[in-house]
Amino acid sequence: MAVIGLGPGAPELMAPAVRAELDQAQDIVGYTTYVRMAGPFRAGQRILDSDNRCEMERARLAFELAAQGRRVVVVSSGDPGIFAMAAAVVEALDQAEDLRWHQVDLAILPGISAAQVAAARAGAPLGHDFCVLSLSDNLKPWSQIERRLALAAQADLVIALYNPSSKARPWQLGQALELLRRHRDPSTPVILGRDVGRPAEQVLATTLGEIRPEQVDMRTVVIIGSSLTRQIPRRDGGAWVYTPRWYPQSSAQTS
Amino acid sequence: MAVIGLGPGAPELMAPAVRAELDQAQDIVGYTTYVRMAGPFRAGQRILDSDNRCEMERARLAFELAAQGRRVVVVSSGDPGIFAMAAAVVEALDQAEDLRWHQVDLAILPGISAAQVAAARAGAPLGHDFCVLSLSDNLKPWSQIERRLALAAQADLVIALYNPSSKARPWQLGQALELLRRHRDPSTPVILGRDVGRPAEQVLATTLGEIRPEQVDMRTVVIIGSSLTRQIPRRDGGAWVYTPRWYPQSSAQTS
Repeated sequence: MAVIGLGPGAPELMAPAVRAELDQAQDIVGYTTYVRMAGPFRAGQRILDSDNRCEMERARLAFELAAQGRRVVVVSSGDPGIFAMAAAVVEALDQAEDLRWHQVDLAILPGISAAQVAAARAGAPLGHDFCVLSLSDNLKPWSQIERRLALAAQADLVIALYNPSSKARPWQLGQALELLRRHRDPSTPVILGRDVGRPAEQVLATTLGEIRPEQVDMRTVVIIGSSLTRQIPRRDGGAWVYTPRWYPQSSAQTS
Repeated sequence: MAVIGLGPGAPELMAPAVRAELDQAQDIVGYTTYVRMAGPFRAGQRILDSDNRCEMERARLAFELAAQGRRVVVVSSGDPGIFAMAAAVVEALDQAEDLRWHQVDLAILPGISAAQVAAARAGAPLGHDFCVLSLSDNLKPWSQIERRLALAAQADLVIALYNPSSKARPWQLGQALELLRRHRDPSTPVILGRDVGRPAEQVLATTLGEIRPEQVDMRTVVIIGSSLTRQIPRRDGGAWVYTPRWYPQSSAQTS
């Protein structure tokens, strides 16, 4: 059984090891949108896709099939290890009462995650210390998210936000930005990467002072610069954004 | 001109877009070890490798060649955007007085970074909020590193440490671990990934209480779990390590 990361979606950013696993699989388990990205599949390969958002159910289905001797691939977009299926799969194993599940030969194959593609398109905003946080309060309390944002801001880390916004979570991003504006200058570079590595890709360089929550949806990754992140003009009229590899020897600490 | 990420080294984890850029390049610029990983090259492709650790010099050389009309690839291992060449290249452009450099068609192609491979081998330790920090105090003051470690620990983030140790920086990791032990339990899972994605790969799951700095060198990435990261037995006798996707609704805050 393999848990694989498609990367952002474009075949040219998918690892050959992932392509090989997909080609050899008998059963392909995953969220419908991602399974479609992973195809086309051969006749005879069984597609077990669903729009069900319950990752644990998919993980359990995959173990059930693998325990029966099927060659199973669990499909994630991006990197399965970063806010995707790998944690659910290992958690399902942790909770498993079926001893056969523990005998399954499990491999996890990494992929390029959305923040990496957005960063590459924009320049090198993740070129120094950074953190990756999910803004979703579906599985963790909002107070914990705010606490982490405040500490990450104090640490002057570049911050990549996954799951920044959705129809069911409309106010969270606005509140997060308000919190970050208390720590960082309005001129701090911000990158919005929507559908990065897919045909509809849009990457926008803006600032913490200018970004509006309405510019962001669930298909967007948001990268917020540190105090040192810089924007420079680009020949196409846009901007390159980068965070230098160095830190001044006596810097004013953010607070 | 393209700045590319080889990924960890294994060809099956290198993006096809990166392979294509390498195949089309006229000039290949990079650190000797990584350029060797990127080959073999065709007769006629010019290799401009060096053991020089000055990333800015390599970046400037690449722009100089590209401005002359050469098709140039700058080679990074892992992801060029994560503690690698992309930030140096954009910084070189930022400082450039030669207007031709600003006319160079520049693209950055992401790759799979070492922490992602180590995480995939170990399970899903980066399955929830995490940060990526360099322990190298070559380009930033040690006080800033300690400050970031302490805040990341307070935020209960999983912490991936790059550049954890080298002959020239022998004491830093020990001091970092001492700091982290003040915030986290000795049973906190720790992963040491050495040469991940390369033939000599070694991945070890240990704990914050047991890890010794001598186990770590400059080719190792270190992942330190959060308060929720768990280890479970694996059929080969080792352990799976994962960080659950959820956070308890009323957790004791670490301090």
